[in-house]
Amino acid sequence: MCILFDMSINKSYRIEKDLLGTKEVPDDVYYGVQTLRAIENFRLSGIPLSHYPDFVNAFAMVKQATAQANCELGHLAKEKCEAIKKACQRIIAGEFHDQFVVDMIQGGAGTSTNMNANEVIANIGLESMNHAKGEYQYLDPNNDVNMSQSTNDTYPTAIRLGLLFSHESLLASLDKLTASFVVKANEFDHILKMGRTQLQDAVPMTLGQEFKAFASTLADDLPLLRSVAANLLTAVNLGGTAIGTGINTDPRYQQLVVKKLAEISGQPMKSSFDLVAATYDMGDFVLLSGMLKRTAVKLSKICNDLRLLSSGPRTGINEINLPARQPGSSIMPGKVNPVIPEAVNQIAFEIIGNDVAITMASEAGQLQLNVMEPLIAYKMFDSICLLSRAMDMLRELCIDGITANAAHCSALAENSIGLVTALNPFIGYANSTRIAKKALETGRGVLELVKEENLLDEKVLADILRPENMIAPRLESVSV
Amino acid sequence: MCILFDMSINKSYRIEKDLLGTKEVPDDVYYGVQTLRAIENFRLSGIPLSHYPDFVNAFAMVKQATAQANCELGHLAKEKCEAIKKACQRIIAGEFHDQFVVDMIQGGAGTSTNMNANEVIANIGLESMNHAKGEYQYLDPNNDVNMSQSTNDTYPTAIRLGLLFSHESLLASLDKLTASFVVKANEFDHILKMGRTQLQDAVPMTLGQEFKAFASTLADDLPLLRSVAANLLTAVNLGGTAIGTGINTDPRYQQLVVKKLAEISGQPMKSSFDLVAATYDMGDFVLLSGMLKRTAVKLSKICNDLRLLSSGPRTGINEINLPARQPGSSIMPGKVNPVIPEAVNQIAFEIIGNDVAITMASEAGQLQLNVMEPLIAYKMFDSICLLSRAMDMLRELCIDGITANAAHCSALAENSIGLVTALNPFIGYANSTRIAKKALETGRGVLELVKEENLLDEKVLADILRPENMIAPRLESVSV
Amino acid sequence: MCILFDMSINKSYRIEKDLLGTKEVPDDVYYGVQTLRAIENFRLSGIPLSHYPDFVNAFAMVKQATAQANCELGHLAKEKCEAIKKACQRIIAGEFHDQFVVDMIQGGAGTSTNMNANEVIANIGLESMNHAKGEYQYLDPNNDVNMSQSTNDTYPTAIRLGLLFSHESLLASLDKLTASFVVKANEFDHILKMGRTQLQDAVPMTLGQEFKAFASTLADDLPLLRSVAANLLTAVNLGGTAIGTGINTDPRYQQLVVKKLAEISGQPMKSSFDLVAATYDMGDFVLLSGMLKRTAVKLSKICNDLRLLSSGPRTGINEINLPARQPGSSIMPGKVNPVIPEAVNQIAFEIIGNDVAITMASEAGQLQLNVMEPLIAYKMFDSICLLSRAMDMLRELCIDGITANAAHCSALAENSIGLVTALNPFIGYANSTRIAKKALETGRGVLELVKEENLLDEKVLADILRPENMIAPRLESVSV
Amino acid sequence: MCILFDMSINKSYRIEKDLLGTKEVPDDVYYGVQTLRAIENFRLSGIPLSHYPDFVNAFAMVKQATAQANCELGHLAKEKCEAIKKACQRIIAGEFHDQFVVDMIQGGAGTSTNMNANEVIANIGLESMNHAKGEYQYLDPNNDVNMSQSTNDTYPTAIRLGLLFSHESLLASLDKLTASFVVKANEFDHILKMGRTQLQDAVPMTLGQEFKAFASTLADDLPLLRSVAANLLTAVNLGGTAIGTGINTDPRYQQLVVKKLAEISGQPMKSSFDLVAATYDMGDFVLLSGMLKRTAVKLSKICNDLRLLSSGPRTGINEINLPARQPGSSIMPGKVNPVIPEAVNQIAFEIIGNDVAITMASEAGQLQLNVMEPLIAYKMFDSICLLSRAMDMLRELCIDGITANAAHCSALAENSIGLVTALNPFIGYANSTRIAKKALETGRGVLELVKEENLLDEKVLADILRPENMIAPRLESVSV
Repeated sequence: MCILFDMSINKSYRIEKDLLGTKEVPDDVYYGVQTLRAIENFRLSGIPLSHYPDFVNAFAMVKQATAQANCELGHLAKEKCEAIKKACQRIIAGEFHDQFVVDMIQGGAGTSTNMNANEVIANIGLESMNHAKGEYQYLDPNNDVNMSQSTNDTYPTAIRLGLLFSHESLLASLDKLTASFVVKANEFDHILKMGRTQLQDAVPMTLGQEFKAFASTLADDLPLLRSVAANLLTAVNLGGTAIGTGINTDPRYQQLVVKKLAEISGQPMKSSFDLVAATYDMGDFVLLSGMLKRTAVKLSKICNDLRLLSSGPRTGINEINLPARQPGSSIMPGKVNPVIPEAVNQIAFEIIGNDVAITMASEAGQLQLNVMEPLIAYKMFDSICLLSRAMDMLRELCIDGITANAAHCSALAENSIGLVTALNPFIGYANSTRIAKKALETGRGVLELVKEENLLDEKVLADILRPENMIAPRLESVSV
Repeated sequence: MCILFDMSINKSYRIEKDLLGTKEVPDDVYYGVQTLRAIENFRLSGIPLSHYPDFVNAFAMVKQATAQANCELGHLAKEKCEAIKKACQRIIAGEFHDQFVVDMIQGGAGTSTNMNANEVIANIGLESMNHAKGEYQYLDPNNDVNMSQSTNDTYPTAIRLGLLFSHESLLASLDKLTASFVVKANEFDHILKMGRTQLQDAVPMTLGQEFKAFASTLADDLPLLRSVAANLLTAVNLGGTAIGTGINTDPRYQQLVVKKLAEISGQPMKSSFDLVAATYDMGDFVLLSGMLKRTAVKLSKICNDLRLLSSGPRTGINEINLPARQPGSSIMPGKVNPVIPEAVNQIAFEIIGNDVAITMASEAGQLQLNVMEPLIAYKMFDSICLLSRAMDMLRELCIDGITANAAHCSALAENSIGLVTALNPFIGYANSTRIAKKALETGRGVLELVKEENLLDEKVLADILRPENMIAPRLESVSV
Repeated sequence: MCILFDMSINKSYRIEKDLLGTKEVPDDVYYGVQTLRAIENFRLSGIPLSHYPDFVNAFAMVKQATAQANCELGHLAKEKCEAIKKACQRIIAGEFHDQFVVDMIQGGAGTSTNMNANEVIANIGLESMNHAKGEYQYLDPNNDVNMSQSTNDTYPTAIRLGLLFSHESLLASLDKLTASFVVKANEFDHILKMGRTQLQDAVPMTLGQEFKAFASTLADDLPLLRSVAANLLTAVNLGGTAIGTGINTDPRYQQLVVKKLAEISGQPMKSSFDLVAATYDMGDFVLLSGMLKRTAVKLSKICNDLRLLSSGPRTGINEINLPARQPGSSIMPGKVNPVIPEAVNQIAFEIIGNDVAITMASEAGQLQLNVMEPLIAYKMFDSICLLSRAMDMLRELCIDGITANAAHCSALAENSIGLVTALNPFIGYANSTRIAKKALETGRGVLELVKEENLLDEKVLADILRPENMIAPRLESVSV
Repeated sequence: MCILFDMSINKSYRIEKDLLGTKEVPDDVYYGVQTLRAIENFRLSGIPLSHYPDFVNAFAMVKQATAQANCELGHLAKEKCEAIKKACQRIIAGEFHDQFVVDMIQGGAGTSTNMNANEVIANIGLESMNHAKGEYQYLDPNNDVNMSQSTNDTYPTAIRLGLLFSHESLLASLDKLTASFVVKANEFDHILKMGRTQLQDAVPMTLGQEFKAFASTLADDLPLLRSVAANLLTAVNLGGTAIGTGINTDPRYQQLVVKKLAEISGQPMKSSFDLVAATYDMGDFVLLSGMLKRTAVKLSKICNDLRLLSSGPRTGINEINLPARQPGSSIMPGKVNPVIPEAVNQIAFEIIGNDVAITMASEAGQLQLNVMEPLIAYKMFDSICLLSRAMDMLRELCIDGITANAAHCSALAENSIGLVTALNPFIGYANSTRIAKKALETGRGVLELVKEENLLDEKVLADILRPENMIAPRLESVSV
């Protein structure tokens, strides 16, 4: 069992009612009866909405945008609009986040989240209007704060906007991590080592090439995440209300409210092409999760490599050293473990698991709505947050502090049978194979054997073995 | 981004040190320098160990068992043992859970969790011995609390024991939910309705049969979960230390400590067959997660059916009514939604996603250890908790309050073309097909058409259509 | 157990040898000793390379390009080049596909596939040069056909090119299916029906809007697949040889061979940015699979809806009719099932499962190579082929033949309590809720009750209920 | 695109008809009009039913059992029964498998597979009765071969029985592989080596312990697979017909037909507890797939270890040698790769992907049937076949030929800093840490440093370092 949200025990209550009846609401909380019902209904993960501040802030922005649009169109009184606006701004400034208490996992396609926001905003607004919490006749969570809206358009809009904020952090983290690998690639530019394919000795390369490749695989993702992902998140169905037809809204409302949201959020929000489709289609999240997964898979592969390359110190590969972050073992003196890459691997696995959950939830939409949106929101925020955190952790606590064991790298390369590949064009395939076999059987070095047999003169051999000649294409004739 | 653990800002500090140097530890906390490092290293999910009390309690029991075993074998002083024992008992009683602060996702294969426990227990013990926190010369987190142990044996042991506690709740939840379906099956025993295959009208059945089948699919899981799952969790590698060879332990220790753990926990803990294998093999968690997934899939299917059967009220199937739990829509008056089954579906998807993460983490073990255990622990506790919660929620807030629209069920059945299947043996396949086609084209009823054509006399027809005759095998001759 | 490739029993053999020794190769086959070893080693799925003709053809194009580049640079004799070129062209024309016999699942990172191609091409070439199969002294699979190459650059290049061919079919299938939905959307433009959220009656819409939304969700994918996916597939590591450093190639070779491949294939092939990274990084396949999955999820959701909307005929929703494709049941006369959408759902699930396999395989790359490429290739070709086939099947055998039950749609809408939402702005929320409740309790219609209570005059009511007024935003004042 | 079933072009046809009309059926084929429709409808994977002979045979046994039960109850004429029986027996003997042509992926919940079987059996039977194929008036695919049946009970029954046959091979493969590891464990019993945790040098163990652990993890699965899995597969819903109510069957039929099936198959087939539940519930396949996945995950981990332990030969761990199966590289002379374990890894990933597909398909069941059964069948047969094949391949082509580099193992162990853990109880933690640090900095050996500082006399040191003392618990006092 896990820990659940603990409702404050309070002496004084106010009475609130909804369609199902009345309930006692603790006097000091800003949420109301519908939020209370949600708390009682969904005692599940113990992770409240407030766990994801970007989501809470985005919801407040959506509510502010709708209030301003409704006011401008003459449907909402200025005083009420002002109260809502100020309440939203205080939330965006970081206040009242602890009032967003509903479990991230919930039925109702986000209705409880929407009502949690409506109630908190209404009660903050009421106090600013010098009314008591719960005096909804002056500012109603439903009629006023939720005017011209349905959960079905505000909730997915807030998810997208919230993810967009998290996405900016992600891009920054990715950018910095890539740069960090580039720095190391340059630092390790002249360290010759053996490349390995299928974990078997292959042909020479530099440690710089290896780290540059890490940078390159990540750099590939940046433009895609920047353009494609951002584009997916900015198109919203706000104004579509219940099923995308915009029933019961002012014909001018939909365009206006999206414009307001763009202004308030500072993000290039725009209307979805087909609001009916946009109300239920979760394909954008499937793709975005797929893109996060792609980056996670790359990070996990890189971390696997870092752990392999730093394995040892004596019975492994030991070409690089990761910075020590914490004592590794109480039973084994002096042991230091690659804890940071290990944590990154696990985050990658979580993101991959989340992708499956998001996929299933997206597939489960029916007709005009996808009721599994709360899980999609939860897992999307989880994945994007974890991926960003993992990249920062990896950069700060690991990559920036990596050092190379240059001498060991060279020694392994020189001792490797794989060197024979570079000699291939000069001594022929038959000789190479014979030398390779002899080296393996005798435990002797390839170069030693080549010299012993006078297959190449020292100068040519030295030329072939110059790192710059082994790690790139070359014309045979050039070298002799 | 998500919320992280917020370290208390404190005026007074004590200085602690480990292999990597010294750190200031807030004076009022019971954890120490190594926990602090872990907090700084793993700023990831924001879900601390204390989110899963069963895990914390299990860890305390493991530590108590080791102390008692070490003391009995003469390796740990009685006074120290007593202090550790009391500290563990207070934790098991629910105290100090807020001191288990390390992120559930961590590198180091659980070392940080183990050290968090060691440090908290040591400092509680020190206070009880009238020493100040941090005076480890009198009771050392490592030498005393962690004596004869490695993270590699205590951590997986605590995971198994903690899951065993959660597993008991799960069995109870499953048992009660099954019983709840049986009650409804009996209540709906005589309500005739149409069965549907491929969402097309098929042949008659009772609503009772439908609900009994829900019970049956769940009842199937109970013995498997009770025997197989419990058996998987009771075998532990405690005493194997670093890699299962039990290096640096007393030869009598391993048997003794497992016996102590069984006594303290009240669970039938036993030694794993091969401690080397048990140190790294995560197959038990893969299977247990697979079993949880099986139940989750069944629940999800049931909830899909409940949502289908209660669809409407006017434009859907509307054979049953789910109890209203919260207002369904602000924009659509009177709408009440199946929020409870919807939440169950999402939990099923999360469990399926967790299964993928657990699978990947289990596959990623290398050589003598699986460093991905922290993720496995996290996702196992998450899945088992959510599954148990989902079943309680479904039973209490939905199943127990379901009512049937018996008249509508009958009307749909009587109006269905599928009835013709029951007439098949009496009027022949050719007549049946012709009548079915005619009914479909004209919109008229099958019975009406049969009567009109005098294909069967009223008495025989009445006999065929008696519910008890349509919902089970029958001999043609019996009926006439 | 599944069926495996059945090696022809043949009287006459030729003897071939490789590093591990000699083997008897049936005289009539074009593959050689290394292919034979692979057949014996990998008796696994029973799916040979020839199951995916696009892959075989792409491999032949890669081999042709390398031969032409090597010849142009003076490394391969013209006669040999001509023989290789002709052999490749015959393969591309569809000949000899049955000689590509290695199991799609194989160890060795594709070496067996590469050698299968090398051997078949060499032997076809030898015959065209009037030599016997196996006389490799005249045209060697390794030295000549594989010149300047490694499996590690040719294999991933052929995978990408082959997928690119399949991708063109996919785009065409998606385009046509989308168009098909648009046609139906227009056809159903004036059919009023109830929209449903959470399977509960919501607010009115047209069947045309519903089908247009199907088209819109798919149309969204087309530009992404066209630009992003194609871009991912055209960048190749050809010329990087073993680990991307291009060891043992002519410095002019890499640029030239990619240019040749572009010419031969007619595809805009280009060099990967970082050949070391490109040799092992499988991120492009993770993303491409994610994009296929997105489309598959959308198709599955659409097919779920089609099955719901056509459920019945009597006890379901029955708003549309899917064309009958085959008798549905031997036991239930007249039953016709939605077999086409059902098959699409299953293909979506397979693609989602493939995505997990591809993800794990991509994550498992180590150091300079990803040895899991054969599985990635297999599952990518499987997913793209199935998705394309599923869309063609869905369009031809289902969508194009869908008819609407317009009268039933209208009747459901008019009878629905959800209509009250449209009346909301005119009779007020309190009246609406009361009317909704009364309708539900009495089973009567909303309009009937509104008229009975004289809440709106007939003319206004008629205006509100005009489809064009219910399915879009409207100003309240406009209507009165 | 992938290759599809290629229908024979034939000059002569017979005409067959079903509810949807008539079609020309090639004269030489044994299947009929409904199979033809399925071929045309489901042009998808290109994998026909005949790819899984166990499935085809099981289906024939089900048909034989139903014929015999119907005959014994007096519903089917003896002559017809005899013809059906003989036809089934010929199929079971391996004849006519090429007539099972429907794609494994199909809509209709298996109706097409059932009809393929019915038609083939009818036509074989007709020929044996001296009638022409297609003269169904003498033996009807539907009325006779399918008597008392529905696809909904025969299809899942055949899946279970077919899997049961494959399951026997699986158990044998697992048993033999485990035994193979035990043989190697004994062979490597006295080879001391370093154990590694987190890829870092840990403490000593023997190579025998390492291989014994491989055997142990697999041995754990055998009893579970033998008891639980077999138990899941023997309970069938045969006799339940359309939805489990057994409509239109003789009340004595259901018990009898299951008894007949047990006799014919030689398997302990029994009736499911609740036939309504058993008709749609796919939970058994979810669990069985989960069990296959557990074994696959273990195999994959073992293969990862084998590849790590055999990495090198010069720049890796190189503690063991895998037998060479095929030349590893054309560009790198002498390279031999671990192709067999690599193939096993990929099969594990495929099985894990299949598990996700099976899970989704199982969750997608609705009301009285799960229409996704064809995908479940396909992926279950795929997983069980691949897993069995992978274990045979691994044993025969890899494990049995593994040799150890004993001297290198010892040298690594003796050179390792991890040895210091064993000295810990003798020289103290402080000395150990200091020595470890010094060794790391200077590159010197731990033993050398201990001797240099005279921390232990030679005799004691020798005793501590005796393998039997390092790889198990020991009392400190015992050793001195």
